[in-house]
Amino acid sequence: MDQERYLTRLRALQALQRANAVDCVALMPGANLRYFTGLDMHLSERPTLALIPAGLTPQATGEPEAGAGPGIGLVIPVLEAGAAREKVPGEVTLFPYSDEEGHEHAFFRAAEALRLENCSIGVEYLAMRLLEARRLEQAAPGARLLAIEPWLPKLRQIKDESEIGYMRRAVEMAQNALQRLLDENAIRPGRTEREVAADLKIALLREGSQGDAFAPLVVAGPNSALPHAGPSGRPLAEGDLLIIDWGAVYEGYRSDITRTFVLGEPTAEMLRIHDAVLAANQSARLGVRPGLPGQEIDRLARRAISLAGYGEFFIHRTGHGLGLETHEPPYMVEGNLKLLEAGMTFTVEPGIYVPDLGGLRIEDDVLVTAAGSETLTSLPRELLRLS
Amino acid sequence: MDQERYLTRLRALQALQRANAVDCVALMPGANLRYFTGLDMHLSERPTLALIPAGLTPQATGEPEAGAGPGIGLVIPVLEAGAAREKVPGEVTLFPYSDEEGHEHAFFRAAEALRLENCSIGVEYLAMRLLEARRLEQAAPGARLLAIEPWLPKLRQIKDESEIGYMRRAVEMAQNALQRLLDENAIRPGRTEREVAADLKIALLREGSQGDAFAPLVVAGPNSALPHAGPSGRPLAEGDLLIIDWGAVYEGYRSDITRTFVLGEPTAEMLRIHDAVLAANQSARLGVRPGLPGQEIDRLARRAISLAGYGEFFIHRTGHGLGLETHEPPYMVEGNLKLLEAGMTFTVEPGIYVPDLGGLRIEDDVLVTAAGSETLTSLPRELLRLS
Repeated sequence: MDQERYLTRLRALQALQRANAVDCVALMPGANLRYFTGLDMHLSERPTLALIPAGLTPQATGEPEAGAGPGIGLVIPVLEAGAAREKVPGEVTLFPYSDEEGHEHAFFRAAEALRLENCSIGVEYLAMRLLEARRLEQAAPGARLLAIEPWLPKLRQIKDESEIGYMRRAVEMAQNALQRLLDENAIRPGRTEREVAADLKIALLREGSQGDAFAPLVVAGPNSALPHAGPSGRPLAEGDLLIIDWGAVYEGYRSDITRTFVLGEPTAEMLRIHDAVLAANQSARLGVRPGLPGQEIDRLARRAISLAGYGEFFIHRTGHGLGLETHEPPYMVEGNLKLLEAGMTFTVEPGIYVPDLGGLRIEDDVLVTAAGSETLTSLPRELLRLS
Repeated sequence: MDQERYLTRLRALQALQRANAVDCVALMPGANLRYFTGLDMHLSERPTLALIPAGLTPQATGEPEAGAGPGIGLVIPVLEAGAAREKVPGEVTLFPYSDEEGHEHAFFRAAEALRLENCSIGVEYLAMRLLEARRLEQAAPGARLLAIEPWLPKLRQIKDESEIGYMRRAVEMAQNALQRLLDENAIRPGRTEREVAADLKIALLREGSQGDAFAPLVVAGPNSALPHAGPSGRPLAEGDLLIIDWGAVYEGYRSDITRTFVLGEPTAEMLRIHDAVLAANQSARLGVRPGLPGQEIDRLARRAISLAGYGEFFIHRTGHGLGLETHEPPYMVEGNLKLLEAGMTFTVEPGIYVPDLGGLRIEDDVLVTAAGSETLTSLPRELLRLS
């Protein structure tokens, strides 16, 4: 069943390879490898590389034999080989290497077996290290390494029912984890950002999250005005704005939510900023429908914040795709002209960051449907008062 | 105080750059960047790259001006810039870029300001992606990208007193976390590997670990015979060997410990294997002293296991360096002729993996001292019986 899913995905990949004249795709440990083979490998100083031929030798022409396995090659440390062998779909040839011999020979053996010399090899510019790139170039003289990012995302962007189900579960886990903290009154003046962040990690694990989607951000007061600052040792204080940005993982699929709180009574300006961010969030979320370019969603959010007079304080894109990676295409950013399609999933996360006042962000996860869109996150979006 | 520490490290780096004819070093988010600047950045689709000149323009000769700042350049997403600006030591020029404009121009501006054209640029083969490499090559025509791994580890391998203090704390956190599970009887037949692993993660957070050193491995029965398998949904069963491999992080520094348990009564063969692994662990640990090549520690462990007749089942190196990375030089592996020096820290982790029986590993963290060595880990090494 699962094997069939991966084989279908591999065949779709191979069809795109042939359309893009890419003889072989080389995948690093990460989301693409997991999507196409089910292998959940980790990146380390010992290289692991999957080599997926287009189904044609470079010299041959015509379609590959119907029903033929993809014939994947896998350069892999010998101590990972046993676990990997049981998981890879289709025909696979392992090129294992031991710590004593090192990985060089395995790259040469793989390049020879897959006839990579003078091939065009599609690689992940966002994942392949110089280590693997140089080894490939040495093992396959004349090979050209081409970025697959321009055409690969097409396959992963449209989620099927089971993937959307995993994401719903990841949203639920994240929401329940926050609720635990609220129920336990764990977010209150005097506790540090780091303490709250650690509690949130624990709550996520308790809810069954399989690893952090990313380290939760818990930033308050001055720290909240820095969109990507990490949790500090500063205790939460009365009057702080508090941004919590967190997510869960289920079967590799992620959720990514942000809510902003105020410790005590909000000032009039905080309320004005909240209204502007909420308007931007709603305008962008409710504007989502198939056929719009990604940049239009960014413009919807930006317009609402500019109208309120805070345009200069909204210093990041409105959102990013969400799935096996916390950040993946499509991006809701000026310049993205690609059209939204049903089955895409991404965040809508406008924010305003005012140096002396603090920051405020509201982030939801959205699914594009045939009719328009569905918001997967269901937590209230008001400026919740804590004390 | 801290600033002074980073400036000292940067000056040592620059001295090595000059000795190796490297005009500029480019550091990715990760351990090296943190070690030399204190910046704890995360890797994402938005590139961040620190550019550290050797203190000389490529054309100039002679020593850099005494007391001159290192003049670091930092290509960075605008939304990370605020937090970074406060942390970087010495003179730093930021080359921020917004999501709308993208990162290309920032690379060109940085390359021009630092005069990188035709330079030799030292890069991390184990960290730099093709994304950053290609951008650097475009922005700095004629530049050569050279691996810094052959000479950089020298600086990070010898830990100072404060670094050793952090590692002691990370060992303590990890040991206390396991003790929590034992006290709560959380490791027992019927619970799944994943449940125990999640409990261990929670216990590590409770002890104050700042993120996972790595996802804890909890593998039992057949799964324990695969050295790098992940925790599965299989319940622990009577008669299983159970390997737990885990660590904590304090101020970026890691611990990495493995202990093996048996559920119920061990068989005679399990006891034989345990004796062999324990002998290998002791022989290697107690053999550590300055002046020995790394491969000698591997040989000490391998000899003990081979003598017991299990040589073919010890399929990985004996250990790896430990510090800001869970795996870093020096490696205790055949072929490593570099000599151990006081202040180095690494693991000693022999193991035996028998397909039908299961696996057994004992891993400790060791510090090389002037007189010999000190084992930082203090948990008992016997085959602990759980039920």
